[in-house]
Amino acid sequence: MRRASKIWLGLSLVGLLGFTVTAVAYANDPTGASTLAQNPQIPLNYVWILVCAFLVMFMQPGFAMLEAGFCRAKNATNLMAKNLMDFALGSLMFFLIGYAIMMGGSWYGLWGTKGWLMLGDYYDVDKYLNMFWMLVFCATAATIVSGAVAERLKFKAYLIYTLIVSAIIYPIYGHWVWGGGWLSQLPFGLGHLDFAGSGVVHAIGGFVGLAGAMVLGPRFGKYIKGKPQGIPGHSMTLAALGVFILWFGWFGFNAGSTCDAHHLRISVIAVNTNLAAAAGTLSALLIAYWKTKKWDVGMALNGAVVGLVAITAPCAWVEGWVAILIGLIAGALMYAGVRFFEAKGIDDPVGAVSVHGLGGLWGLLSLGLFADGTYGNYSLEEPFVRGLFYGGGWGQLIAQLIGIAVVFVWAFGTGYLIFKIMDKIFGIRVPPEEELEGLDISEHGTPAYPDFIQINR
Amino acid sequence: MRRASKIWLGLSLVGLLGFTVTAVAYANDPTGASTLAQNPQIPLNYVWILVCAFLVMFMQPGFAMLEAGFCRAKNATNLMAKNLMDFALGSLMFFLIGYAIMMGGSWYGLWGTKGWLMLGDYYDVDKYLNMFWMLVFCATAATIVSGAVAERLKFKAYLIYTLIVSAIIYPIYGHWVWGGGWLSQLPFGLGHLDFAGSGVVHAIGGFVGLAGAMVLGPRFGKYIKGKPQGIPGHSMTLAALGVFILWFGWFGFNAGSTCDAHHLRISVIAVNTNLAAAAGTLSALLIAYWKTKKWDVGMALNGAVVGLVAITAPCAWVEGWVAILIGLIAGALMYAGVRFFEAKGIDDPVGAVSVHGLGGLWGLLSLGLFADGTYGNYSLEEPFVRGLFYGGGWGQLIAQLIGIAVVFVWAFGTGYLIFKIMDKIFGIRVPPEEELEGLDISEHGTPAYPDFIQINR
Amino acid sequence: MRRASKIWLGLSLVGLLGFTVTAVAYANDPTGASTLAQNPQIPLNYVWILVCAFLVMFMQPGFAMLEAGFCRAKNATNLMAKNLMDFALGSLMFFLIGYAIMMGGSWYGLWGTKGWLMLGDYYDVDKYLNMFWMLVFCATAATIVSGAVAERLKFKAYLIYTLIVSAIIYPIYGHWVWGGGWLSQLPFGLGHLDFAGSGVVHAIGGFVGLAGAMVLGPRFGKYIKGKPQGIPGHSMTLAALGVFILWFGWFGFNAGSTCDAHHLRISVIAVNTNLAAAAGTLSALLIAYWKTKKWDVGMALNGAVVGLVAITAPCAWVEGWVAILIGLIAGALMYAGVRFFEAKGIDDPVGAVSVHGLGGLWGLLSLGLFADGTYGNYSLEEPFVRGLFYGGGWGQLIAQLIGIAVVFVWAFGTGYLIFKIMDKIFGIRVPPEEELEGLDISEHGTPAYPDFIQINR
Repeated sequence: MRRASKIWLGLSLVGLLGFTVTAVAYANDPTGASTLAQNPQIPLNYVWILVCAFLVMFMQPGFAMLEAGFCRAKNATNLMAKNLMDFALGSLMFFLIGYAIMMGGSWYGLWGTKGWLMLGDYYDVDKYLNMFWMLVFCATAATIVSGAVAERLKFKAYLIYTLIVSAIIYPIYGHWVWGGGWLSQLPFGLGHLDFAGSGVVHAIGGFVGLAGAMVLGPRFGKYIKGKPQGIPGHSMTLAALGVFILWFGWFGFNAGSTCDAHHLRISVIAVNTNLAAAAGTLSALLIAYWKTKKWDVGMALNGAVVGLVAITAPCAWVEGWVAILIGLIAGALMYAGVRFFEAKGIDDPVGAVSVHGLGGLWGLLSLGLFADGTYGNYSLEEPFVRGLFYGGGWGQLIAQLIGIAVVFVWAFGTGYLIFKIMDKIFGIRVPPEEELEGLDISEHGTPAYPDFIQINR
Repeated sequence: MRRASKIWLGLSLVGLLGFTVTAVAYANDPTGASTLAQNPQIPLNYVWILVCAFLVMFMQPGFAMLEAGFCRAKNATNLMAKNLMDFALGSLMFFLIGYAIMMGGSWYGLWGTKGWLMLGDYYDVDKYLNMFWMLVFCATAATIVSGAVAERLKFKAYLIYTLIVSAIIYPIYGHWVWGGGWLSQLPFGLGHLDFAGSGVVHAIGGFVGLAGAMVLGPRFGKYIKGKPQGIPGHSMTLAALGVFILWFGWFGFNAGSTCDAHHLRISVIAVNTNLAAAAGTLSALLIAYWKTKKWDVGMALNGAVVGLVAITAPCAWVEGWVAILIGLIAGALMYAGVRFFEAKGIDDPVGAVSVHGLGGLWGLLSLGLFADGTYGNYSLEEPFVRGLFYGGGWGQLIAQLIGIAVVFVWAFGTGYLIFKIMDKIFGIRVPPEEELEGLDISEHGTPAYPDFIQINR
Repeated sequence: MRRASKIWLGLSLVGLLGFTVTAVAYANDPTGASTLAQNPQIPLNYVWILVCAFLVMFMQPGFAMLEAGFCRAKNATNLMAKNLMDFALGSLMFFLIGYAIMMGGSWYGLWGTKGWLMLGDYYDVDKYLNMFWMLVFCATAATIVSGAVAERLKFKAYLIYTLIVSAIIYPIYGHWVWGGGWLSQLPFGLGHLDFAGSGVVHAIGGFVGLAGAMVLGPRFGKYIKGKPQGIPGHSMTLAALGVFILWFGWFGFNAGSTCDAHHLRISVIAVNTNLAAAAGTLSALLIAYWKTKKWDVGMALNGAVVGLVAITAPCAWVEGWVAILIGLIAGALMYAGVRFFEAKGIDDPVGAVSVHGLGGLWGLLSLGLFADGTYGNYSLEEPFVRGLFYGGGWGQLIAQLIGIAVVFVWAFGTGYLIFKIMDKIFGIRVPPEEELEGLDISEHGTPAYPDFIQINR
């Protein structure tokens, strides 16, 4: 037994060292046998990463139900089509091109250049695992935009935009932060950090969406004599189902981002994720009640999502009560954002810009303030991540502020360019009569609910 | 190779011993490195518990869809709001207060006193994991009540009740059974046992709901000249979706409750969970057909849930055919319960009292009858749990009967007190005109389905 | 440290050997302690298999939502009932009878004969695990049929048919392929192979469904003067939700089918699953657009499913770009199949025959063409599976062609027999007036959506 104890201890030490090498690539092992032989601990990581990736993929119907629920019945088929096709096209593009750009080495910190079509050396269990993980995040970024441009964007334009986000916009920015690119190498703090993608996924999606909403202009009937009108969605049950699904999938999104199940920190991440969502829900509900004297479920649902968005960057580096604080502030910020963009004449049918854009930036910032020095850079070892309020000085905060500026400029800039160019070439907005009739008929020939007598609003 | 074999054997033995210590707290390890070093096997448990906890969290939309589906369209927004807010508020309250009361040591077996806000020593990967696990169960208990009080309870009253259930009612009873409290120390059998919470979660939720339904009184139109009327729900597809989600999530609920993935007994638990649900579905369907000559899907759906509720307490201690028997009886009991409460003038719109209350008590009882002595007290080691029919004598059965009495008195008593006090202070029922119009408009200002022409029943 | 390294290496080697024995049955260990002692690595497999099994079970609401969404509102309750009861009945029958026939030894390669009711030696953690895994697949096969016979089959006939599929049709064919039966012993290639059930599950379900649709005849209004009419479904959001759920669950279906988490090949399987689904979606969408100039979401949704069906057999044996190819072809095949059966007067309301039947056969065939020799027969060791285009010669392809013929004959033959016999005895189709009114009222007494004013189509 004593001997076994020593073995036990030995294993622990080796294990601890081992974690730093789990990310090492085992070139070209499609069978997986030699990867396993080199690291017998790795199967647990595969199980963890795959299950979490499945959960992230499941966020797709979460977005689909949320967006459809918040929009009108006459566009529900269209929203199903968009959410389905961005995942389908995104999956193909990211496999063929995106992954190479994001993770295939680094050309001066700008983008990768290897792994096209995952051929040759890239037909490897580890590479496929990593590609799959990055892919489900890519698809999330793409799908966020569909909410901001809902009820008026041509389907063709949506398909083209999806190709570009999946193949270029997301992979390049992702490279900068997660692929060894220049933002991760900033000489401030530990470089720009974004644990699970408040910036890489959500701010990217949110600000591309902002560009789309601005190029498109508001829906018919959104402004009457300049005053914004509420256009309630057609199904509060679907919207709520969508948010619950997102909340569920987000546990995979955040906790899976350790990419190592031996980081027991995953329990803290799960708790923080849950607390921020809960706090965002509560603050949005209370602020809306204070302003309108109604228990506004739509706001509470968006409050949950913005809490999740905000905690995504800092989830691994803060403790529970801070997660609550981050969520409370996120809910308030989202509420203010929705009112702000609405007042500025920008029509974002589901609030995607405020939820994912503003929430994403706040998440990136909060990390620079509250990271408490109990967890490293995806590592159990020093240096640990520390924000301003926890003795980390200004370094990490500066790195975060730089990232905030870059993600906004990149997402909004490329997004604006793409939507504007497409608009010049073929016009991205459906004709007025199609918008009034709803996109389901004109674009898809299939009303979503032919058995029910409806009011065309 | 021979040496490796010895190591192999050594590991096995150490492993077997190791399981008894996995539950030991490693004080204050927010990073998780020393917890890991002390027990290199533990990451698998983290993965198992977290994934199962995510599944339990996902039961929230299950309840939301089931309850909304079984109620009228005019209250669907309200049900979304309730199911969302009980999870949000419950998450915050349980983190801040509930966990300390439930698991923070034990003051004379009555309640815990440490761990408020999870600060200091409680900022620890193991503590956070355990808190998260207990939290998702707490939220389930809270959400069950919303069905019994549906379509007439003020939203404000719902928020207050949720705070109290999450911070006090569930944590204190949970402490008695799972936190080392007095019920777990009863000098009969192995103390009162409840593997995954037929009592701690479901009977608590069910009988607090009974108290709520009694204080509220029946909905308008439920009784005409004293005769109960059927009030069909507004969406059978949502109701069925909800039950399927619950069935799915319940695998996490029950199998995850080993809190140790090295207990291979999890396979038996999963099978038993599935069989009891299937048997409950079948018996409810057949009884309803026998009585009404219709294949009553609503009854079958509730049959699935009551089968799940009933197997929750005994799932780890019985074999498959017994799980079928438990499910068959549960379905019949639920059918009789629904008719009984309806006849007694107690209006429970979704049958929550019969499903969770009666089903929960039957689950606690069945364990005292059928536990077959093949699995211990969350342990692979003796003493194994044995019921009356498997040579265990009367001890375990007596412990179960005591628990049954206590859970009923505690849940119904505290529930009645809270609803009655609130009713005295501000009146917990919405005004008649709001009830007739539906709570969606008056409480939330948002009809659930504004695009569809509806019948106001 | 050096010593620990040796241990490390030793463990790896033992581990590699160990994988070949993980499938060995440990007779009668209901507690799980000795199974664990003999193989301390096995808990990870339990976690993997159980989580994947939960995901497969969750495909049930996927099918339920897809089928209901593609059918009319007047039959939605009926479809919920069918999808619920086939899982409930199937679970009971497979536990009581099916598993013994499928996996209880082999009587001349035809069927098993041990393990009835999982009693005695079969009360064992490993046996229960295996039974549960096979059961969720069985339930999938059963539920597929409900789509093809939707909107006109009597509920009683559905219950009887479910009993027979779960107890006999699926278990016997499953035995032939996965239970050591004669198809797996064919002297061509490595015997007939079907990694996760393109044939065992999907072709079985699809062609039993074809038999059912043929015996029943088309729905009223499907053909007017011999010309097929589109009968759009009542909810595109539910249909899309269903497909997303299926896509999600399918990761468990395919990747879990290694039944060993130490096969890191699970990452390749997950990627292939996703790519084929994406490619199927895309090809179906584009073909439909080419033919109709509409972005047909219904076709795209079925394209996703047929991509998933087709990749199910070859998912472990091909690389990513081949998965895309398989999916693209599957989508085209499905489109052609839907048109073909429609033109032949066979009314399959949801396209189940083309999706699951044709897609399943194509999956079986593709494996014989494209298997690339990087993974064995559920094994990391040689012999690896090789198809015609990868130097495998004709052997594997012949084995696949034999399986294709057998699965079609078996499924269509037994299915036709059962539906025909039932039809002779009591008539399996509901009376015309009930079909026109919808089955929800006549069979169940419960309209699915009583709050909404509907059009009876």
